[in-house]
Amino acid sequence: MIIKMKEQATKKEYEKIVAYLESRHFEIKDVSSEHIMVFGVIGDTSSIDPHDLYAFQGVGEITRVSTPFKKASRSFKRGDTIINLGKGVQIGGDQFIVMAGPCSVESEKQLMKIAENVKKAGAHILRGGAYKPRTSPYSFQGLEEEGLKLMRKVGDQTGLFVISEIPSADLLPLFETYVDIIQVGTRNMQNFHLLKALGKAKKPVMLKRGMSATIEEWLMSAEYIMAGGNEQVILCERGIRTYERYTRNTLDISAVLAVKELSHLPIIIDPSHAAGRWNMVEKLSLASLAVGAHGLMVEVHHDPEHALSDGAQSLKINKFKTMMTEIDKISQVLGKRHL
Amino acid sequence: MIIKMKEQATKKEYEKIVAYLESRHFEIKDVSSEHIMVFGVIGDTSSIDPHDLYAFQGVGEITRVSTPFKKASRSFKRGDTIINLGKGVQIGGDQFIVMAGPCSVESEKQLMKIAENVKKAGAHILRGGAYKPRTSPYSFQGLEEEGLKLMRKVGDQTGLFVISEIPSADLLPLFETYVDIIQVGTRNMQNFHLLKALGKAKKPVMLKRGMSATIEEWLMSAEYIMAGGNEQVILCERGIRTYERYTRNTLDISAVLAVKELSHLPIIIDPSHAAGRWNMVEKLSLASLAVGAHGLMVEVHHDPEHALSDGAQSLKINKFKTMMTEIDKISQVLGKRHL
Amino acid sequence: MIIKMKEQATKKEYEKIVAYLESRHFEIKDVSSEHIMVFGVIGDTSSIDPHDLYAFQGVGEITRVSTPFKKASRSFKRGDTIINLGKGVQIGGDQFIVMAGPCSVESEKQLMKIAENVKKAGAHILRGGAYKPRTSPYSFQGLEEEGLKLMRKVGDQTGLFVISEIPSADLLPLFETYVDIIQVGTRNMQNFHLLKALGKAKKPVMLKRGMSATIEEWLMSAEYIMAGGNEQVILCERGIRTYERYTRNTLDISAVLAVKELSHLPIIIDPSHAAGRWNMVEKLSLASLAVGAHGLMVEVHHDPEHALSDGAQSLKINKFKTMMTEIDKISQVLGKRHL
Amino acid sequence: MIIKMKEQATKKEYEKIVAYLESRHFEIKDVSSEHIMVFGVIGDTSSIDPHDLYAFQGVGEITRVSTPFKKASRSFKRGDTIINLGKGVQIGGDQFIVMAGPCSVESEKQLMKIAENVKKAGAHILRGGAYKPRTSPYSFQGLEEEGLKLMRKVGDQTGLFVISEIPSADLLPLFETYVDIIQVGTRNMQNFHLLKALGKAKKPVMLKRGMSATIEEWLMSAEYIMAGGNEQVILCERGIRTYERYTRNTLDISAVLAVKELSHLPIIIDPSHAAGRWNMVEKLSLASLAVGAHGLMVEVHHDPEHALSDGAQSLKINKFKTMMTEIDKISQVLGKRHL
Repeated sequence: MIIKMKEQATKKEYEKIVAYLESRHFEIKDVSSEHIMVFGVIGDTSSIDPHDLYAFQGVGEITRVSTPFKKASRSFKRGDTIINLGKGVQIGGDQFIVMAGPCSVESEKQLMKIAENVKKAGAHILRGGAYKPRTSPYSFQGLEEEGLKLMRKVGDQTGLFVISEIPSADLLPLFETYVDIIQVGTRNMQNFHLLKALGKAKKPVMLKRGMSATIEEWLMSAEYIMAGGNEQVILCERGIRTYERYTRNTLDISAVLAVKELSHLPIIIDPSHAAGRWNMVEKLSLASLAVGAHGLMVEVHHDPEHALSDGAQSLKINKFKTMMTEIDKISQVLGKRHL
Repeated sequence: MIIKMKEQATKKEYEKIVAYLESRHFEIKDVSSEHIMVFGVIGDTSSIDPHDLYAFQGVGEITRVSTPFKKASRSFKRGDTIINLGKGVQIGGDQFIVMAGPCSVESEKQLMKIAENVKKAGAHILRGGAYKPRTSPYSFQGLEEEGLKLMRKVGDQTGLFVISEIPSADLLPLFETYVDIIQVGTRNMQNFHLLKALGKAKKPVMLKRGMSATIEEWLMSAEYIMAGGNEQVILCERGIRTYERYTRNTLDISAVLAVKELSHLPIIIDPSHAAGRWNMVEKLSLASLAVGAHGLMVEVHHDPEHALSDGAQSLKINKFKTMMTEIDKISQVLGKRHL
Repeated sequence: MIIKMKEQATKKEYEKIVAYLESRHFEIKDVSSEHIMVFGVIGDTSSIDPHDLYAFQGVGEITRVSTPFKKASRSFKRGDTIINLGKGVQIGGDQFIVMAGPCSVESEKQLMKIAENVKKAGAHILRGGAYKPRTSPYSFQGLEEEGLKLMRKVGDQTGLFVISEIPSADLLPLFETYVDIIQVGTRNMQNFHLLKALGKAKKPVMLKRGMSATIEEWLMSAEYIMAGGNEQVILCERGIRTYERYTRNTLDISAVLAVKELSHLPIIIDPSHAAGRWNMVEKLSLASLAVGAHGLMVEVHHDPEHALSDGAQSLKINKFKTMMTEIDKISQVLGKRHL
Repeated sequence: MIIKMKEQATKKEYEKIVAYLESRHFEIKDVSSEHIMVFGVIGDTSSIDPHDLYAFQGVGEITRVSTPFKKASRSFKRGDTIINLGKGVQIGGDQFIVMAGPCSVESEKQLMKIAENVKKAGAHILRGGAYKPRTSPYSFQGLEEEGLKLMRKVGDQTGLFVISEIPSADLLPLFETYVDIIQVGTRNMQNFHLLKALGKAKKPVMLKRGMSATIEEWLMSAEYIMAGGNEQVILCERGIRTYERYTRNTLDISAVLAVKELSHLPIIIDPSHAAGRWNMVEKLSLASLAVGAHGLMVEVHHDPEHALSDGAQSLKINKFKTMMTEIDKISQVLGKRHL
C-alpha cells in the first residue's frame, strides 16, 4: 500500500499516520520527493480498507499494491481450478461447457421438452430459474420449491446436471438438496450475508458479475465464498450496465482475459442476458469461445413468445442446434475439448 | 405501452402479437404510418415486462407509457407521505430531519459519547451499523446483535430514535425488536427476497438507492415493500457510481426533485457516503437543504482516525455542530421546520 | 414520434402542442387511454429534436419511432456498403481487412521497418498517427505534416494503403493529399464542424466511436458526414468507458451486431485501444472475427518499450505474425475472405 | 509516480525499466516487499504518460503521485484566480455571477427582449449560441456570424457582457472580435487543436466539462489552454452522463468542492443543461449557491415553446426573476456578494 500525503500536509500529520501503522506492525518505507511526502506500507494489508485511512488529516491518496483478494488470486494458486461434476463433465481447463435451458421453470412438460433437446444438441448442464428476481412485484415470481424439484427430476431423467439461482441464505438447504451448482444472481453479488452462507455450502457456486461491478469487486465476492471454505467457485460474465440501450447490457468480453490473468477460477459467459436479444446470442457465443471462456450459459425455449419470462433473449431449439454445430467447428480449430 | 414493429416486419407478425395482447384483454390502437407499424396497448400493463414481448418476431421497440410503479407513484397518492415517529419527529412534509452517528457501533462508550453530542447539536435520529456490509471478508464485520442492543439502549437513554441496516430477511424479528427504522443498504436495493419480507414489517423502512440504479428501479424496489402492505418507506440518495474517482460516489442531487415529482415518499440525502470525504459533508448538506430534501443522514465520530470503518467520511463532533448551525440559518430563510 | 402527456396535463395543454405540430404539417393520431393522453406524430420527424418539445407545458415523455439517422440506416440502403480502395482491397462485405502500424509515426526508419513486416504478415493498410491527441500538453504531439509525408512515402514503397487521424477541419487539404482513409478520433466524434467538412472530402472516412457515445449518437455522426455528400464511411469500435479499470476501455463487441442491424456501413474493431494491453490483442482480434466484424485496426511496433506513445498496447512484430496465422485459420472455418 | 511490478516479474524486467527511467534522469526509490517489487520515480513526471510504461514487460500497475496538471493546480497558485471583466464584474472569489440568455440567438428582437429582462433581474452576462452543436445535421444550426454580431450589439445596448460557444479554431478571430468570454462546449473539451489555439487567445475562456470526463481530465484540458499562455480560464460543470434518464444529465455538484480543492480556477454551474428540465433549474441554482459555486449559467427564453432549441430547459422570464430573488436571500445568509 502506497500512501501519498497532500501537498499541504504537515510533518506532524505524516508522523501520526506512520505511528499508527507501525503500531499495527506494518513496515514503512519512505519514497518522498522534495515536494511531496509519500511512503509504502509493507506487510499483509488485506485487513485494511484503504478508505478508512483517509480519516487521518493530511492523507492525499492511497493505492493498493497487492490485490485485496487472496484465495481467488493467481498468486495463491498457479494452476487453473477445475470443477469436476462427474461423468467427465468439468468446468475449467480445456473443456468448453454449455449450460442451457429456459429462463424460468414453467411446468414439467416445458422443462422436459427443452431439456431433452438441449441434451441432444450437446449441452452438459440444464439451467432453469425457480425463484425469479423480477424488477416488478407484479410479474411472475417463479415456481419456487416446486421448480427446484422439477429441475432435479428432469435433470436426472435426461442425464443433465442442474443449476438454479438462490435468492436468500435461508433457502440453502433446499438448494443443496436439489441442484448441482448454486447460482448467485447479478443483484446478489454483494449480498455478503448470502456469500458467507455459501462459504459453508457443499456444492459449487456460480457467481454472476454485478451489473456495474468491477472485476476486483467481483473477485472480492468470490473471496467471501472461498474464505468460508468453499473453493468451488465459477465466475459468470453476463454483461455490464453502460449507456448503450440497443443491447440490454454490454458484454465485457475482455473480462475473460482479465480474470484468467488475475485468478485461477473458471469463467463462463452468459450472452443471453448480456445482449437481451436472441439474434445476437449465436455470434456472441462464438466470440466467447474464441476469446477463451470456459463455457456458456444460454437461454433456450421451445416457444419463446409464450415464455413466462425473458422470451426475448431465448433461442428456439433449432437455432440452438445450429449454434452448437458452429461451436463444434471452431472448437476443433482452437483445440478445445467439447463433449 | 407503445409497440413499434421493425421496418421489415410483416403484416403477419404484427397480427400475431396483436392477437396475443387482445387475448390478454388489452385494447389495441393503431398509430401506423406509411413506413412503419406502430400501436398502443391500452389497459393495466404493469404485469407485463416489456422485455418479454421482444420475443415476438418483428417487434422493434417497446415503450412504457404508464410508470411501472403504482403505490409509490404520485398519481396513486397526491399528498406527501409523512412518517410519524412520535415525539413530534416526522419524516416528510416541511420538517428537515437529521440522522447522525457513527458508521459502525464499536462500543457502548463510543456510541454514548457520539449520541449525546449529536442530540445536543439537534439531531433527531441515531444511526449506527451493527451488521456491516464490507467488501472484504477480512475487514471488521460489525458487533451484530450486540450492536443492535446497544443502539436501543443508547437511543432510549438519549431520547433519540434509532436506525440500523438489515443484512438479510431472517434477521427481521431482531430488527423489529431493537430499531425504529430499518435501513436497506445500497447493495441490497434489489434483494427482492428481503424487500418482500419488509413488506410485512411493522417498522418504517429506509431504502438506499442502489449504486447504479435508475430512479425508476429505485421506486420499483419501494413498490416491492409497499405491495406487501408496508407503506412507510423513506428513500435515501447516497451517491451513484460514475467515472469520477476524486469523490467516492457522485451525489445525484437532482434525484430529490425527480423523486418529489414522481412519488409521494419522503427523500433524504446521505452526503457522507456520497462524497466519502468528511470535508465535503457540510457544503453538500447545505445544498441538500436548498434543493428541498426532507433530511440528512450524516456520519459523525468522536475519533474518526481510529474508527473501525469509514473514518474518512465522518465529521468530528465540533464540525457537526458548526454544520447544524449553518443548517438552522438557511432553514429559516427557506421556511423549513427544523427542531 | 409518440408523445405522452403528464397525468395531470390539461386538455388545453394537449390541444396546444397538437395545434403546433399540425401547423408544422404533421399528422396526429390519438392513442389516449382513460387515464393518460398519448398521441402519435406521423411524418418526417427527423428535423425535430424531441428534447425541444418538452418546453410545452404538460408534455410527459417523447419517444422516437423512426431512427433519427436516414442515410446511415439500413432502411435507406438494404445492401452493405463496400468501400473499394483498389488493388482488390475492400472494406465491407465478406472481406476481413487488417490495418496495422505504430501508434505514432516516429521516423522513416521506424515506419518502414514496421510497414514491411506487417505487409509481409498480411496487413492491407498502414496506420500511423501524425497529429496525436494527447491528454497532456507536455507529451509528444506527433510529427505533424512531416508524419503524413512519411506515411505516404512508406505506404507507396510497401504497397500498403494509409490511414491517419485528422485533428481539425482546416487540415483537410493536407489529409486529402497524403492519406487514403481519413480517421476521426474518439474525442472528435461529435466535433460537428469537422464532420461537416468531411462531408465534402473526396476520401473515405473512418469514424471512431466516442468514448461514451451510444450507437445511435455514433450513427448520427456518420449521418453528418453522409448528409454532406460523402457516403464512404467506415465505423470503428474502440472500446467504451466503463467503471472497469483493469482494461483501458471496455470493448463493446456486441456493437458489431447492432451496427450491422441498424446500418449498411462497414464496422471494424480496434482491440489495441479497447484493451490498452498488448497481451489481450490477439484473443480480442479472434473474437472480433468470430462476431462478424469487417476488420481490425491493430497497433504494432518493433520496439514498444521505446515507442513515443501507446507502447503498452502495441504488439511486437512476431506476435502480430502469430495472430495473423490464427486469423487465417478461423477465417477459413467461417468462410471469410482474407487476402 | 509509483510502479508496481507483476508478481511474476523477473529481476531483469525490473532492472530494465529502472535503467530506462534513470536514463531519463529520474531518481528511483525502492519500496519492494518480500513478495512484490515496487519503486517510486522521483522528478517531474508530467511528461510521462503512465500508460506508455506498461509496454515494459513485467510492469503491473502505475500510479501517479503528483497531479498531471501544473498551472491549473492549487499548488502552482495558492490564491483564487479572479477574472475581471470590468465594471465591477468579477468571476471568482466572493462574487456570485449570473450568466443568462437564450440557448440560440434567433433574432435581434428575441435577443433584446430576453437581454433587457435578465439585466433588469440582476444578470451580469448574456449567453446565446451562434454556432449550435446539434446532434442532428437536420436541426437548426445557428445564425453563425450574424448571431455573434447580434450578441455584441445587444450586449452593448443593455450593458451586459457576452459569452458564446466557439466550434472550431479557425473561427477564433471572429470570437475575439465579438464576445467577452469564449465558451468551449462539452463535446469539444478534448478538441486539443482548439484548446491550443485558445492558449493564444486574448479573451477569457469558459471550459465546459466533457459529458463523461473526470475532473482530472477536465483540469488537463484547462492546462492545455494555460500552457499556451492564457491563464484566464473559467470551469463550468454542466452535468455528466449517467444511467439516469429522468434528467438529461446528472449534475455533479460535488465537482465544485473538488475543483476548489485541486485548482485555483473559478467554477460555475449550468443547471439548465444538467437537468434538461426548466422546473428543476431554480432549486438546482440554490443548491449551487449553497455548495459554493462562483456563479451560474442559465437558459432563459420569453417563449420557450417556440424556441429554436432547448426550450425544455429554458426558464420563462418571470420564473427567472423569482429565482434571482431567492438567490439574493440566500446570498445574504451566506455572505456572498451579488450585484
